[in-house]
Amino acid sequence: MPEINADHLGILEEQAKRGWKGRIITNPNCSTIALTMGLAAFKPFGIERIIVTTMQAVSGAGYPGVPSVDILGNVVPYIGSEEEKMETETQKIMGSFTGGQLVALPARVSAACNRVAVVDGHLVATSVELKTKPSEAEILSAIASFAGEPQRLNLPSAPKQPVQYLSEKDRPQPRRDATRDRGMAAFVGRLRPCPVLDWKFLVLAHNTIRGAAGAAVLNAELLAAGGWIK
Amino acid sequence: MPEINADHLGILEEQAKRGWKGRIITNPNCSTIALTMGLAAFKPFGIERIIVTTMQAVSGAGYPGVPSVDILGNVVPYIGSEEEKMETETQKIMGSFTGGQLVALPARVSAACNRVAVVDGHLVATSVELKTKPSEAEILSAIASFAGEPQRLNLPSAPKQPVQYLSEKDRPQPRRDATRDRGMAAFVGRLRPCPVLDWKFLVLAHNTIRGAAGAAVLNAELLAAGGWIK
Amino acid sequence: MPEINADHLGILEEQAKRGWKGRIITNPNCSTIALTMGLAAFKPFGIERIIVTTMQAVSGAGYPGVPSVDILGNVVPYIGSEEEKMETETQKIMGSFTGGQLVALPARVSAACNRVAVVDGHLVATSVELKTKPSEAEILSAIASFAGEPQRLNLPSAPKQPVQYLSEKDRPQPRRDATRDRGMAAFVGRLRPCPVLDWKFLVLAHNTIRGAAGAAVLNAELLAAGGWIK
Amino acid sequence: MPEINADHLGILEEQAKRGWKGRIITNPNCSTIALTMGLAAFKPFGIERIIVTTMQAVSGAGYPGVPSVDILGNVVPYIGSEEEKMETETQKIMGSFTGGQLVALPARVSAACNRVAVVDGHLVATSVELKTKPSEAEILSAIASFAGEPQRLNLPSAPKQPVQYLSEKDRPQPRRDATRDRGMAAFVGRLRPCPVLDWKFLVLAHNTIRGAAGAAVLNAELLAAGGWIK
Repeated sequence: MPEINADHLGILEEQAKRGWKGRIITNPNCSTIALTMGLAAFKPFGIERIIVTTMQAVSGAGYPGVPSVDILGNVVPYIGSEEEKMETETQKIMGSFTGGQLVALPARVSAACNRVAVVDGHLVATSVELKTKPSEAEILSAIASFAGEPQRLNLPSAPKQPVQYLSEKDRPQPRRDATRDRGMAAFVGRLRPCPVLDWKFLVLAHNTIRGAAGAAVLNAELLAAGGWIK
Repeated sequence: MPEINADHLGILEEQAKRGWKGRIITNPNCSTIALTMGLAAFKPFGIERIIVTTMQAVSGAGYPGVPSVDILGNVVPYIGSEEEKMETETQKIMGSFTGGQLVALPARVSAACNRVAVVDGHLVATSVELKTKPSEAEILSAIASFAGEPQRLNLPSAPKQPVQYLSEKDRPQPRRDATRDRGMAAFVGRLRPCPVLDWKFLVLAHNTIRGAAGAAVLNAELLAAGGWIK
Repeated sequence: MPEINADHLGILEEQAKRGWKGRIITNPNCSTIALTMGLAAFKPFGIERIIVTTMQAVSGAGYPGVPSVDILGNVVPYIGSEEEKMETETQKIMGSFTGGQLVALPARVSAACNRVAVVDGHLVATSVELKTKPSEAEILSAIASFAGEPQRLNLPSAPKQPVQYLSEKDRPQPRRDATRDRGMAAFVGRLRPCPVLDWKFLVLAHNTIRGAAGAAVLNAELLAAGGWIK
Repeated sequence: MPEINADHLGILEEQAKRGWKGRIITNPNCSTIALTMGLAAFKPFGIERIIVTTMQAVSGAGYPGVPSVDILGNVVPYIGSEEEKMETETQKIMGSFTGGQLVALPARVSAACNRVAVVDGHLVATSVELKTKPSEAEILSAIASFAGEPQRLNLPSAPKQPVQYLSEKDRPQPRRDATRDRGMAAFVGRLRPCPVLDWKFLVLAHNTIRGAAGAAVLNAELLAAGGWIK
């Protein structure tokens, strides 16, 4: 996740120390990409607990993927292994890389994953508990100013603003927002207090662009900029 | 909600004491009906905190309701006043009626409401925290044996088993399950541990039958059985 | 097609004469079933030319069938071999069985087949040219009084009225009408003059019930009633 | 329809002769635009009879337009006045302007109009009878070389090739093709012999761009280029 854990590329040096002939960088799960983009600006406030419910597009299942008789006019509240992936990958991606070691974020994460009748764009309804208790203005400001390595390096595929807050009361929406900014940004909306944890909001990302092909390209650009690919 | 708070009809006597000429019984919000049916069997375990994300059918918006250009291949993550209603009505319906007074359930409730491209059936992804820490078997047993006044009175519109657990890994689904048992039961599925609260599960109810017309009929039957309607 | 060419069972005697050990009865293509049910009442008027455009449900493609990414919010204007099947099978089914020989209906048939985002029910927009020039009243009367062998024999799975005319201006509709009468009838609507041929109308039939499983059961009941199955 | 009957602007001079203070140019019905774009290249072959079935997007009904409970997983086989409009407007637009007089194309046109669960793009299944009997190659060549006044004048909003033939066996498709070339071209596919008339094919156009706003802009550009707007 170039915007979030570019420092984890340090793992490549660990791989080198172990005498590996090749190097392995992986792309995260596509719904985890949406979630971690949405959470990125919250990290400085100390993320303690996260509960998410996803509404995921059919294109996330590849081709032929989800049979149309299963999803037309329907919701399928199960995606194999998706909840486990979101719960563990989120901790890893949001974790820190210290002393050649990946230290997972010590936040508890609970995910409920659903397939909906949408072509592209994973929408994630998120509730989050934060250690420091930031105001709404502080959170909005953190989102507006969030940038990662791809933005600092001005990488070709990097969106100018990787996380964008939509202030309309009924956004983000998969069909209308997922392809904005060439599908490479994440869109956050409806930040409001959560009566159980601290804040709730929605985050949307294009699952086959930001969540797959585009993320891989951006990773490659980051590796090239860092001299890992020559 | 005949299955859940039939005792709240005591309020009718309070209305009589106040000298009201008529009596007022209200039907709850349709997504709240689905949620409280799903929570009913959990009540004895002491419900402390609830986080829900709804995926609601378009028929819940009446006619003409949701314009098709807004919802085809899309999710609209906003339904006016719905979250506030779910958060407060759930506390009321799950509350107790003591000494002529309604005492709301002292549980915190957080709701995130979404409209999806489904015709009938509100699906609610739920996480719940419980005071006593029941086992999975105890919860499943509580669901299986749950019954309310309509079942005890064998009311004409009452489903034999008002809350039914579906054990398939990908159910309940709105298009396939909402109309089972003439649309009068609620369907629970995917009970599993929640890493943040205690348990997560899904509950589905038919929003225009169980959630509206059918609920009103069942209320009338309950009133008739109790001698309130002559 | 029990309602239309029950006399074609005579072919079983031909199969016997040829010394076949078994007998073969086939079910027609599901969209052809819808069309021929719709045309059945027109046969006495002398069918000369037929142009149809189908809007077919995804369940017609079996399981997993049509990938959801292909059909959500879309129309796929191609179904492999479907147009050829409709053009030739319609002539056979509407043909006569004379002297141990099947004589195809000498009508020209043109079909354009499309897959739409519908779960069940094939809808066929039909234009037809007729030899005798019946009035609208004569056609409606022929539809209302149409009955076949299954009705005369009162077979268990036979709908009382196999072809039903819906007089509302916007019917039949797949989602609302296909399952009426247990999915075993065909529904005709919007009969109106065609400026090019003589009449245009719509016909709808449930593709997996009337168009497949139910048709096979009805065929079996017809064979049993005729003494072919003992 | 700038590509098809730019010469009909002569009507403006007739309006002037009658002493009208203003001038009136109208945009045609959106499904008629799709059809006439598809038929444009056929005009030199002498169009005699046309039978079409439309599958029209919900955005064609404006906002709020089609209620989602009516169209999700459904087809509504009726659009008020649409069939009459297509039948008469097609004759007018494809007609000639001679001696200050509009002479309608003497072709018979039959339309069956349906609303489908598609956001944008009207798809028209067309059968056509032609006076001269062109070969498939001649028709494809006529489509490939078709251009109108907007192309000759190189107007800003004019697509380079206004009618494009898609040779894949299952195209054009509304969701995948309607927005190609900024939504200003029409897409034809599946040209094949029609057993009843001569040829059948599909044509698709974006109903709110090519079929409405974009068409109006192109008309304005044509008027400006012709000196009608100063």
